[in-house]
Order: sequence, then structure tokens, then C-alpha cells
Amino acid sequence: MSKTNDFPQPEAWYHHFVSYGETDTMGVLYYAEYLHLFERARGHLIRERGISYAEVERRGVILPVREAQCRYRVPVRYDDEIFVRVAVSEFKRASMKFAYEIRDKDKTTLHATGMTEHACLDPDGKLFRTPDWLVDMFKP
Amino acid sequence: MSKTNDFPQPEAWYHHFVSYGETDTMGVLYYAEYLHLFERARGHLIRERGISYAEVERRGVILPVREAQCRYRVPVRYDDEIFVRVAVSEFKRASMKFAYEIRDKDKTTLHATGMTEHACLDPDGKLFRTPDWLVDMFKP
Amino acid sequence: MSKTNDFPQPEAWYHHFVSYGETDTMGVLYYAEYLHLFERARGHLIRERGISYAEVERRGVILPVREAQCRYRVPVRYDDEIFVRVAVSEFKRASMKFAYEIRDKDKTTLHATGMTEHACLDPDGKLFRTPDWLVDMFKP
Amino acid sequence: MSKTNDFPQPEAWYHHFVSYGETDTMGVLYYAEYLHLFERARGHLIRERGISYAEVERRGVILPVREAQCRYRVPVRYDDEIFVRVAVSEFKRASMKFAYEIRDKDKTTLHATGMTEHACLDPDGKLFRTPDWLVDMFKP
Repeated sequence: MSKTNDFPQPEAWYHHFVSYGETDTMGVLYYAEYLHLFERARGHLIRERGISYAEVERRGVILPVREAQCRYRVPVRYDDEIFVRVAVSEFKRASMKFAYEIRDKDKTTLHATGMTEHACLDPDGKLFRTPDWLVDMFKP
Repeated sequence: MSKTNDFPQPEAWYHHFVSYGETDTMGVLYYAEYLHLFERARGHLIRERGISYAEVERRGVILPVREAQCRYRVPVRYDDEIFVRVAVSEFKRASMKFAYEIRDKDKTTLHATGMTEHACLDPDGKLFRTPDWLVDMFKP
Repeated sequence: MSKTNDFPQPEAWYHHFVSYGETDTMGVLYYAEYLHLFERARGHLIRERGISYAEVERRGVILPVREAQCRYRVPVRYDDEIFVRVAVSEFKRASMKFAYEIRDKDKTTLHATGMTEHACLDPDGKLFRTPDWLVDMFKP
Repeated sequence: MSKTNDFPQPEAWYHHFVSYGETDTMGVLYYAEYLHLFERARGHLIRERGISYAEVERRGVILPVREAQCRYRVPVRYDDEIFVRVAVSEFKRASMKFAYEIRDKDKTTLHATGMTEHACLDPDGKLFRTPDWLVDMFKP
């Protein structure tokens, strides 16, 4: 499996079967659907680290997406069984980044790579320093 | 044009080009997307009657969908130019219904028919009598 | 659990966490998303009965949705853990129906009920008699 | 209006009202929906230049997305009236790029910027040189 060692840790793998509703008339997973999968994988990672993202928000931390990017390499088709690999790739003073890969069921073929950057906001929508408990959650 | 005279009045026609993201691997408009189109047509009708649905909510009336139904007759494809016909078909004491048709650009081919039923709630989520100003908005 | 005994058999339960992208500004699962969940549950049921829906199509049976209906009872929110219950409710000469329920993680609260009806088409898009192997797949 | 002069030409503006189904529980346009809007704006631009994207495909040119990126600056809310500005920003030997902006109804507030890069494929899925007639379509 290429690049395994380079991927930030700790990671999580979100398992998914591609549905009809996610594909388009070209017969492949529609490009906007990758961002939905990234969000689900993100939620899955946070849940595996101990709490849900809903709980993160209840603790007063809102993490809206400030930037998203995806590189589409090998098309994914209807009924394909895929994995979304996800990890936090960087913490900055008031933001954080996640890295993503979409791989086939054997985790070999690399279908896509992506990233999202999130601002760290308080409930009033003000930027504030990423709290230690959040940073600690993603320590190896 | 079939059934024209039977359709409740006043009506509105929402114009739309089918995008890639709305189609599926069978090459047709995905069945859940019809409900998105119904919502847009509904918003368009309300706007044509004088205010936006956002304004309806600001006036204290929330209209969540209680039931939705769609009959798919003739598939719609990518880049098809279509019209969604919409009108209020019924007011009940604390609810209302909308009727829909999806037609081609000539308004002849009937691609689909549908309906949605909406509860009439106050901002606290309690059922209440559909206000007169709302009923009056949809008088011919 | 209400109505358990009435639900057609054999059934399957599709497990799901509600994502941000499925909710709307009212804070609940958007009404069109229920049809996406129905499709995923349908695919899950077919897979549990032995083959995937993609394989059904490869065997020459296309099952496009002819009608869909959903009754929304109790709103579902972001991060809610839910189950979609699904079964074939009826076989007709050249069509079939599925029944659905959306329930909470304890399978007690009934959030929604729904149905879809599917035509049975050959690869040329012609109606044909539902094949025995398909009917047999859904025998208890 | 900031940056107007820097935006590649010829440009098109795609008009849109944000629907409920495009928003999320945070009350804003969901981040994946921006890519749907980019696609619609792209189709609108191509149509304004003389033919539809469906016609481009019929002429043997497939333009799958190879990369997409979006920078989210100011949230967009339900019922907001917005414009998506779009233009071809670059032609390469066998690919092309589009640039996007999402602006409010006055075209002043800049809600988001983005780009998509598309491979130029023949009907067999092979990379080939972007044809002259396609390049010429986007000449000022």
C-alpha cells in the first residue's frame, strides 16, 4: 500500500458502499460526494477518539470548513466498497487540518486524496485558540 | 397539454436545467432529487405570491413536511430543460398540501407528479390554525 | 416496539449516523435524504439476501423507482444513530414494493415510514415478469 | 467590487436562491453544495458560449473533474440570493481549469472562491489535446 507510512497518525478508516444516489450519469461517484464522505470520515475519526463531533460542539468548539480540496485519481463506481482514510494533519493556533484518502476495499488502489481546513470558533463565532483537550484527543 | 384545467390555481412554474450532480448511474434524474425540486418550486411559488418562505418563518409559521409522495412516469436526463408546476392543493385546519408536476420544456410531457403535506407549527413547534394571511396569499 | 409483528419478512436493518450534510437549517434530517436512506437500506437488504443490486442488474433486471412515499413522524437530528428497517412488501406481475421504517438506535421510536414501488424492466427498458430467482431471494 | 478586473474573461454569472436542502444544521450552505453550484455555473457558462456541455460530450469531449478546491469566506444562508461567477482560467495541452466566485445579490460580498481542473478525454477515456473549437469557444 503506497504512502502508508506518510499518512498522519492516529488515523481512522471509514467503510462505505457507493449508492446510486451518489453517482452521476457518467457512472461514477459525483465529485461533490467526496466532500460528504470526508465529513462522515471526520465524524468517524472523532468518534473513535472518544467523543462525537456533536459533543465537541456542545463543549463550545465549532469547526466550520474554511477550505476544502480534493484530487480525483481513479473513478469510483456504483456498489464499489471503499474506505475513507482520515487523520488530523496539522494543528495551528486557531485552526486545524484533516487529510483524506479514498481507497478500494483492499486499501490498495488510491482513488482520491483530499484535505479540509477548519477554523476554530467559539459559540459566538469568534476565532479562539484550539483547546488543549481537542489537541490531546488526536495524540498518537 | 393534459390535465391543465385540473391543476389547482394559482400555480407557478419553476424552470430548471438538470445538472450532472442530480443524475445517477442509470443516466436519469435521481428519485430523491425530485423532492429537492419540489422544495425549490414551493419556494418559487411563495415568492411569486408576495413573500419568501424565509419571511413566512419570520412571521412565526413553520411548515415542516409531514408527508411526501412522487410518481415517476417518464425519466428526466442530464441537461434536460424542465418545468416544475406547483400550487397549493388544500388547506386544512392546521396543515396544507402542495401539488406538483414535472414537465418538459414544452410543458407537454408529464415526467412526474407529486404532493407534499405540511404541518402548520408555531415557533415552539406546536400545531396551530393556518393563519388567514397565509390562506389569503394563495387565493386566485 | 410498535408494529414489529406487522412488518413484512424477511427484513434487514441498515445502521446509520446522521451527517451534517444530510441535515437542513431547521436542524433536522432533510426530507429528501430519507429516500437516499431508503435506497441504501434496499441495497443492504438485497446484499444480505445473497447478491448485490449491481449483480441483479448484471443479470438483466433493472428496478427503477415508479413511486416513492414517506411519512415523517418524529424529526431526526445531526449525529443521531438510526436504523432503517426494510423488506419487500409485495410482488406483482412486473413490479415489486419495498416497505421502510426509520427508527432510533433502540429501535423503539418510529421516526418515519415509507414505501417504494419499482417496475421490473429488462435491459432494453421493457416491462417483464419478475423472475423467479428474484422472488425466491426474498422468501423467508 | 473587489478583484473584478483580475477575473478571467469571458465570464458568466449564474443566479441562485439557496434552498433548504442545500443548507445544514449550522444554518448555512453545506460545503459540498458549493461544488454543485460550480457545476451548474460551468454548464451555464458553456451554454452562454453557444452549446451545452451535453453537446460538448456528443462531440466526443469528456471533461471529468481531476481536482476541485474551494475557499469558504463568508457563510451563505437559506433563501440568500447569490451569484456564481465563472470563467475558464487556463487551457493546458490536455486539460483546462475553471475559476469561480460566489457573491451576494449585489455582487459585492465575496462568499467563496474556487477552482476545478478537468482532464480532456475522448469517448474511450484516453487523454487527448483540447480541441481548437473548444478553446475558441472561450475566447473573449
